[in-house]
Amino acid sequence: MSSTNAARRAALAASQSVGEVDAIVVADLNNLRYLTGFTGSNGAVLVWTGPSRDGDRISTDGRYLTQVAEQSHDLTAVIARDCSSELLRTIAERCPGARVAIEGHVVTVAAYARLTELAAELGLHVASVEDAVEKLRIAKDADEVELITSACAIGDAALAALVERGAIAAGRTERQVARDLEWAMYEYGADAVAFETIVAAGAWSAVPHHRPTDTVLEVGDLVKIDFGAVAGGYHSDMTRTFVLGEVESWQREIYDVVAAAQRAGRDALAVGADLASIDAAARTVIADAGYGEYYVHGLGHGVGLEIHEAPGIGAAASGTLPDGATVTVEPGIYLPGRGGVRIEDTLVVTDTGATSLTTTSRSLTAL
Amino acid sequence: MSSTNAARRAALAASQSVGEVDAIVVADLNNLRYLTGFTGSNGAVLVWTGPSRDGDRISTDGRYLTQVAEQSHDLTAVIARDCSSELLRTIAERCPGARVAIEGHVVTVAAYARLTELAAELGLHVASVEDAVEKLRIAKDADEVELITSACAIGDAALAALVERGAIAAGRTERQVARDLEWAMYEYGADAVAFETIVAAGAWSAVPHHRPTDTVLEVGDLVKIDFGAVAGGYHSDMTRTFVLGEVESWQREIYDVVAAAQRAGRDALAVGADLASIDAAARTVIADAGYGEYYVHGLGHGVGLEIHEAPGIGAAASGTLPDGATVTVEPGIYLPGRGGVRIEDTLVVTDTGATSLTTTSRSLTAL
Repeated sequence: MSSTNAARRAALAASQSVGEVDAIVVADLNNLRYLTGFTGSNGAVLVWTGPSRDGDRISTDGRYLTQVAEQSHDLTAVIARDCSSELLRTIAERCPGARVAIEGHVVTVAAYARLTELAAELGLHVASVEDAVEKLRIAKDADEVELITSACAIGDAALAALVERGAIAAGRTERQVARDLEWAMYEYGADAVAFETIVAAGAWSAVPHHRPTDTVLEVGDLVKIDFGAVAGGYHSDMTRTFVLGEVESWQREIYDVVAAAQRAGRDALAVGADLASIDAAARTVIADAGYGEYYVHGLGHGVGLEIHEAPGIGAAASGTLPDGATVTVEPGIYLPGRGGVRIEDTLVVTDTGATSLTTTSRSLTAL
Repeated sequence: MSSTNAARRAALAASQSVGEVDAIVVADLNNLRYLTGFTGSNGAVLVWTGPSRDGDRISTDGRYLTQVAEQSHDLTAVIARDCSSELLRTIAERCPGARVAIEGHVVTVAAYARLTELAAELGLHVASVEDAVEKLRIAKDADEVELITSACAIGDAALAALVERGAIAAGRTERQVARDLEWAMYEYGADAVAFETIVAAGAWSAVPHHRPTDTVLEVGDLVKIDFGAVAGGYHSDMTRTFVLGEVESWQREIYDVVAAAQRAGRDALAVGADLASIDAAARTVIADAGYGEYYVHGLGHGVGLEIHEAPGIGAAASGTLPDGATVTVEPGIYLPGRGGVRIEDTLVVTDTGATSLTTTSRSLTAL
């Protein structure tokens, strides 16, 4: 991956959003991983913005001496506890008077005060930039799409295993189903679960972000399951809603509306598509069916090194989808006290349209 | 817990570290949980510092409408997406011209810029404070000690179950043992695992923070296991090191030195004890045995709502232990390429000395 990481650093150096500086110091751990491959819990990378692209450095502390040499072998590592400070010293030695960008949306007020004080001592000029790396991360490269695809496949396989062995059934608790699903993801090779698995049965399915309880699943329940896996640092995100036993007509009705809305949302994904219009494509279907007030959240979000990342797809979103964006499409209808349905996939957007990386059937399944 | 939460807010209002302000807005999620009981992923609490202690408010977004009413029922909730901004408006309405403290070690430079701009519009004065709540959190109250004790008991029970059923054995992989242990913690009631479980076998045991691999455990290996559970938001932290099969003399030797150092560290814990002196008590034992250079980290850290929190117990630490502090004591010796030993407990410090909340035997156990 080191050539990929180097290409990403070059893209950052060339990016408009960095502004008029000589170097940028990136300390957000996801951004650091993206630019260097390093996965430790403390570190920063110095990226020079000049045309030579020579002399980038990574810094981490002594715990990660071996790890950083393996994961970021194309970068010289500077070992220090306070990585950003140490990189400012490195910059001052090589380029006196340099202008240095620091991530203003990551660094705290307290840390920034210490860094600007040090910069003044060193004769450097510090500027705050926002989201420079996050903007690059929206369009995934081939390595990233491969990892997200793996994570999605793990989620699909785990859910299929639960369905096959009858683990989503009346008499079991939400918590048991959630633990089984998480365990199955590990068995299929997940590094971690993407977020705390949501299993919401009966009336709880009407709570968009329900945490699993000891509620027992009963015949007649809608069971909403929202979960994901992590593979190589990259996340998957999928929701499916089942019915236990016979499907009642109101359940069928809201399921069909959500499924149609989700299809409309998926169909609206395209390179250059306006984010708010994508949201509207799905939202209109639900509103036209008379359930608009029961759909209380945005349509989707980017997925990658974070489970929620840019771009947000909602009514108030601005901007468009770039080639390579990986996003969720997840409309829902939630009838308080009765139950809810959400259907969600993770998709990648390319020149030829959007491909769903989660592949579990979206048909209403009665268990 | 709401009376406890109210008492904590009163303690914050009375705390010296808040400075000369009329109110403080706390948005760090652990600090928010500590002060209000609320466990959502977005929120802030407004704590008035005046003597009346009336009118504290919590803010969160629409996803948590029900949850905040349940968890923080003694506080009026203000529903908004940008919680800190909304609480500034609340302050301006009630107390024009108020001075407001904001957590400078939590809020980013970018967010602080937006908040100070809003404050200026509202006629408020904003100041940055650091670690005001974290300082209070060092001394645990009875509710907190109870939860940490529960988390420790889950860890003890899970490890005992693995030992009993022969799950830590030659032929199994580090990853299998780690997953079994995490699964067992869930079975014993953990809400979550405290951190990614470390299982390090053979030469890997010499890496202080090794991540489990597919390395197969072999007869003759040292197997170092560092893990913890979460109960009600509170963490446990324990390390035990086993030997598979017959104990070699060098393994016995470093084990005995680490055990003696750990005992010395535990014995040094007391209300008012100097943090650096506690570290020295253990470190001296290892240095005197000739292994000083192979003990490469601090002695311990606070444990609570975070797995690592104040106070750090190390050679360069300043300050003393208060009554009710919960800390780890975890010296180690790591012989590169050969193997390492660490022994770690989580303890609570009280007037009558320190009590270990983790209770698994510290004797060298050959499996």
